[in-house]
Amino acid sequence: MKTQRTSLGRHPERGIYDAEQIHAILDEALYCSLGVLRDGLPVVLPTLHVRRGDQLYLHGSVKSRLLMDAASTMVAVSVSLLDALVLARSAFHHSLNYRSVSIFGVARRVEDREEKRSVLEALVEHVIPGRTADCRPPADEELDATLVLAVPIVEASAKIRSGPPVEAPGDENLPYWGGLLPLVSTAGKPVPDDLTPAGLTAPGYLAGYERGRRS
Amino acid sequence: MKTQRTSLGRHPERGIYDAEQIHAILDEALYCSLGVLRDGLPVVLPTLHVRRGDQLYLHGSVKSRLLMDAASTMVAVSVSLLDALVLARSAFHHSLNYRSVSIFGVARRVEDREEKRSVLEALVEHVIPGRTADCRPPADEELDATLVLAVPIVEASAKIRSGPPVEAPGDENLPYWGGLLPLVSTAGKPVPDDLTPAGLTAPGYLAGYERGRRS
Repeated sequence: MKTQRTSLGRHPERGIYDAEQIHAILDEALYCSLGVLRDGLPVVLPTLHVRRGDQLYLHGSVKSRLLMDAASTMVAVSVSLLDALVLARSAFHHSLNYRSVSIFGVARRVEDREEKRSVLEALVEHVIPGRTADCRPPADEELDATLVLAVPIVEASAKIRSGPPVEAPGDENLPYWGGLLPLVSTAGKPVPDDLTPAGLTAPGYLAGYERGRRS
Repeated sequence: MKTQRTSLGRHPERGIYDAEQIHAILDEALYCSLGVLRDGLPVVLPTLHVRRGDQLYLHGSVKSRLLMDAASTMVAVSVSLLDALVLARSAFHHSLNYRSVSIFGVARRVEDREEKRSVLEALVEHVIPGRTADCRPPADEELDATLVLAVPIVEASAKIRSGPPVEAPGDENLPYWGGLLPLVSTAGKPVPDDLTPAGLTAPGYLAGYERGRRS
């Protein structure tokens, strides 16, 4: 068993290694949980993200009061990838193998239309690599209706558990099966909508869709 | 396309129907994101949960200062199930089909050892149905090392998006494929650890493991 914590900011000498690990988890995760305040109380919202360099971009609607109010405030972002269920001989030592990232930072609202355009292109590519070139790009009014927040990946940490279960001393010979049940995230077959012509086959980038989870 | 919001508390007349929907999402989700405050700022932690009746139970370690401090404070819990990627003709109308639940409530620390014991048994069953009877139950000192928080499922709402993409007027005949890419969560083959005797086959409750996601 290996539980590993890494963090940026507090240990700048480990920066490059840690940043790579943190970035890889952010890149693999499809969505994140955003923590903000409303009337001084915590609120958690699921939302899509994309990382570019050392910035994490989140998007939403300009109609979302909560997201609009989050601009220029300190927010928390949490991302988790579940890799396996960990079955120990004791109920207490059951666990999960996972890779998670936690980020704290002041959210900056992206106002510039061209920056927004390129972030939203990257967001589509984050979710479905290959799709940007195969759909209509955003019109100006669509960009204006979209809220984009940027959070610097500076106060950021990763936590990773991997490997087999840990047993309490004395439990090693209990007559229970122990080990891992890997969790796998895959995509099914593309389902065309009614507007798709019968002759138009699903694009190749959907056939092999995978986010590359490991067990 | 159908985006559906339901909530408890504010619309008591819809209580039974809404509660069923909210409970089903909580029961299917493997983990949740817990929002708490630290020094007045939001923090989001992934953690395991289990629902019993109208209570959501979360667990952690009594060594976690953050979780210990969350007792008797207002917390937020967010749970998301991703069902499909939604591919529209325009980048802007891309979406996800998902089922999510949001809960706000004051966390109560469960102190009673017998209540803890039964909650933790339910937690193991939530993650791996069938496992409780096939492992060593918690010792008193293991119960004492575990923090259990209960959040009432009262101020709770579900949000569900389902169905095909929505198109902007005029996009219907653009020459792009549109539809859904279902996301599927499954389990791989059980991997025994080194302590498991060669003759002990993996338990039956692992072979058919599934959390029942829909597309």
